[in-house]
Amino acid sequence: MPKAKAPIDQNALAAGPSQGRDGLQLKGRLWLEKNGKTFLSWGRVVLLERIVEHGSLSAAARSMGMSYSHAWGLVEEMNCLAGEELVSKQTGGPGGGGARLTPAGEKLVADFWRLVDDFRDWITRRELS
Amino acid sequence: MPKAKAPIDQNALAAGPSQGRDGLQLKGRLWLEKNGKTFLSWGRVVLLERIVEHGSLSAAARSMGMSYSHAWGLVEEMNCLAGEELVSKQTGGPGGGGARLTPAGEKLVADFWRLVDDFRDWITRRELS
Repeated sequence: MPKAKAPIDQNALAAGPSQGRDGLQLKGRLWLEKNGKTFLSWGRVVLLERIVEHGSLSAAARSMGMSYSHAWGLVEEMNCLAGEELVSKQTGGPGGGGARLTPAGEKLVADFWRLVDDFRDWITRRELS
Repeated sequence: MPKAKAPIDQNALAAGPSQGRDGLQLKGRLWLEKNGKTFLSWGRVVLLERIVEHGSLSAAARSMGMSYSHAWGLVEEMNCLAGEELVSKQTGGPGGGGARLTPAGEKLVADFWRLVDDFRDWITRRELS
């Protein structure tokens, strides 16, 4: 059963068209779990994309207003659940080390957005009575 | 962009089959908005159903661990956004008044579950690579 006050409804990953004169709209979210644990969600995918963009976990975390330790924990959890590295971290170097997605990480992000595209297509075609 | 720590991923309204040896599973939620405001979500539908079950808003709220004032606020908001009563409240009487769904409220609950059935069907057919 959902929690009484879970403030979740503002984070739509997909939204259908506004229908009728009173603007009725269907919205939704998708995520992936592995053995009952969150594996990939919208926030995690955005984090992976920010790692690509910034080339560093700390900059990616900062760009999302997320603490480094939280971002690190998410990446560790994703790597662990995947059974292989999705993000590889390079320590040291002039810039203090960086992070990048492995091919498995890149594939996962692409697969997730394919699912989301499919979901957006589905949600767009719903007729609300 | 999603909040970094929004603890929402446990409340799946639909879940696909567990796939592969590492139990990859697609899950999701749906909700309805009107003019950008949450109109109907899983929690709200459960509240409406509990009103049917208990015949009273206070008993329905109590059964969900929700305060009466929060439940009242949700019902007022749904009635307002619908532009008609979904829940009608009877004040007074031997049992201290009761609440029941109007035909419009009953239709809305049925429509929501039809959308959810359709969503569950869609999510069940996804193949995860």
